[in-house]
Amino acid sequence: MVNVALLGFGTVGSGVAEVLTRNGDLIDSRVDDLVRLKYIKRAREVFDGPYQDLFVKDFSIIEQDPQVDIVVETIGGTGAALDYTTRALKAGKSVVTANKELVATHGYELLQLAKEHGVSYLFEASVGGGIPILRPLTSCLAANDLTQITGILNGTTNYILTRMIQAGLTFEQALKEAQDKGYAEKDPTADVDGHDACRKICILAALAFGHHVYPDQVPTEGIRHVTLGDAAYADSKGYKIKLLGRAIRQPEGKVCAFVAPHLVADTAPLAGVEDVFNAIAVTGNAIGDVMFYGRGAGKLPTASAVVADVIDIAKDLKRDRHNGWASGSPDLVVSDDGLTSKWYVRAQGTMDQARLACGEIQPLARSGAPTSEVAFLTAPMPRPLVLDKLRGMEVASLFRVLD
Amino acid sequence: MVNVALLGFGTVGSGVAEVLTRNGDLIDSRVDDLVRLKYIKRAREVFDGPYQDLFVKDFSIIEQDPQVDIVVETIGGTGAALDYTTRALKAGKSVVTANKELVATHGYELLQLAKEHGVSYLFEASVGGGIPILRPLTSCLAANDLTQITGILNGTTNYILTRMIQAGLTFEQALKEAQDKGYAEKDPTADVDGHDACRKICILAALAFGHHVYPDQVPTEGIRHVTLGDAAYADSKGYKIKLLGRAIRQPEGKVCAFVAPHLVADTAPLAGVEDVFNAIAVTGNAIGDVMFYGRGAGKLPTASAVVADVIDIAKDLKRDRHNGWASGSPDLVVSDDGLTSKWYVRAQGTMDQARLACGEIQPLARSGAPTSEVAFLTAPMPRPLVLDKLRGMEVASLFRVLD
Repeated sequence: MVNVALLGFGTVGSGVAEVLTRNGDLIDSRVDDLVRLKYIKRAREVFDGPYQDLFVKDFSIIEQDPQVDIVVETIGGTGAALDYTTRALKAGKSVVTANKELVATHGYELLQLAKEHGVSYLFEASVGGGIPILRPLTSCLAANDLTQITGILNGTTNYILTRMIQAGLTFEQALKEAQDKGYAEKDPTADVDGHDACRKICILAALAFGHHVYPDQVPTEGIRHVTLGDAAYADSKGYKIKLLGRAIRQPEGKVCAFVAPHLVADTAPLAGVEDVFNAIAVTGNAIGDVMFYGRGAGKLPTASAVVADVIDIAKDLKRDRHNGWASGSPDLVVSDDGLTSKWYVRAQGTMDQARLACGEIQPLARSGAPTSEVAFLTAPMPRPLVLDKLRGMEVASLFRVLD
Repeated sequence: MVNVALLGFGTVGSGVAEVLTRNGDLIDSRVDDLVRLKYIKRAREVFDGPYQDLFVKDFSIIEQDPQVDIVVETIGGTGAALDYTTRALKAGKSVVTANKELVATHGYELLQLAKEHGVSYLFEASVGGGIPILRPLTSCLAANDLTQITGILNGTTNYILTRMIQAGLTFEQALKEAQDKGYAEKDPTADVDGHDACRKICILAALAFGHHVYPDQVPTEGIRHVTLGDAAYADSKGYKIKLLGRAIRQPEGKVCAFVAPHLVADTAPLAGVEDVFNAIAVTGNAIGDVMFYGRGAGKLPTASAVVADVIDIAKDLKRDRHNGWASGSPDLVVSDDGLTSKWYVRAQGTMDQARLACGEIQPLARSGAPTSEVAFLTAPMPRPLVLDKLRGMEVASLFRVLD
């Protein structure tokens, strides 16, 4: 018998309970043991419904029950979640979570703690929702020297951009629609300003390159300033605008990581990733390019990944899963200034001014553009150079073009 | 020290040696032990090059060396490969392979043999080349009741179809081009007649649904009879023609599995999979749809998957990997006759005859079509019904439309 305690009973938590119950027989047969949900820790006073006998308010009941093997943390954030995770690991219980914020900010110390206590800390669901990505990255691609990860890591922003491109909605209209559909929170900051994607690229970079990458080391730009005009200019030459999280291995063990809107050519697989779907492309020196695609959020997809981690641990409670990474350092992450790419520019001015400033350019047009506006693609160059060239122009949008 | 013996030194075999050598330090650090290539069994008399000290001709040297932990079989086929695999497992050595034919025809017995001898038989590279699919299917998606797998499983046929659609080449021209580029064998039967895809869908179905599915149980149709006219009719309504391997769970533990050309809507992620790329879409009751995409063949991508299996075993030589399935049975696999879908029909006749035969249809047009030819999409119906309705017409092409 393997006993599981669930912390939190919101969207993800109730999804985990549902998957453990609905697919219980199948899970037991895959583990070759009985996997039982023993406790659900929940703050609300009113306990009813099918799990009413499992609810507890006090975490120390779970902490002190030697029968609890696995704690599933679905509280979110870095407050109580960090406290309970730390205590659970110290009490010799493995912990599974979908909490990207906690892993991105405290992953290194929690993985160390798990190792010290001979237990596991797994977080497949923290990136890409239900999409299998972290385990494939560390097991199936283990023979590769990984060089690059590029991901559409946030379903909310991808939905908004898709609706802007396909239905001609403004950013504000598309955000409102996403909120009405439950795809975006009332306070959409974490999504639309790129923080959620930033946490995810930190976790991917740490797994791929072996050192903790902290969110505050990663330059992060969201999509609030992407306009319908930008989408139309991009479309005129066969590009879609996508918010990408990128991590690129640099010489001497350093990492270039950043989050920013990009122009992605329609012929690239990432361009076809629409609505709330996520996709993560990984490049390795043997595999070439491989891509993982699916629903990056949602109750059951996320629960699917959480329960997969529970099954993995339950199959062998004490196995060292080698899923850690080394500590980070202030000079580990380098800015993307050195990265050469074409640039998309929308500015006030004329095409002659643009040519004078940037030399060889590819002009872009859209119907209804004001005569004072100019948009174009530059030749490949690093950011400091394009900024220098554009010094004399009033720039409204400046996005990289994905190679 | 973990010692590896390699059987065969063709494209995949030499790729495995290259990855083990080139990424050796990285592999050792991931395994936390030294992984050493000790023998390469090769039939050719002339032994030279960087691995000349490792070459042996006699398999019994490997079989009888207790220091050999892992045997990598890259011989292919079901002759010597079956003999050596059986003997290696009986000698207590784990075996890794990319040999889809061997796994599809003898997987059940070899997995049983591995279990009996406390070793592993892994074959991630047998499906999708380097794409991580088998391990994610059994680990990351373990919390799901899986219901359906749909895959573009053969790079050669996907290249041919892509070139027919994009460059207007005939099947024969595109095949010739694929052969010139090294994507197709001189005898292309296994690829173009669907046998390769059939073996792969057998392996996927066995892993997803738990029972061995034999290739001769799976109705298999290739792409030799797909014409440029078919591609043009499909394109006129936003469809691409793709060769799909499909496995669909049926009531009472049965499986519907088949390989056939399909019309796939441009909006579906599978439609965007071009050239030699493969993609496998999996549906589960929690995850919804998830897709894996990458190079389905090639020396280094395939070697990447083989070496990932080597690393997995080397990390823990004696761990039970729970990657087996139960035996097959003659009545396990049901035909796709019961599966309802729209159908694409190209036939001799007029649109009036088509309407008279099939009722509500969606007419298709293409430039340059002979006046005696008619093409259309039917309403959804099972195969026996559409065959019955079309009895009076001379049908040239009949393909399912993917839902």
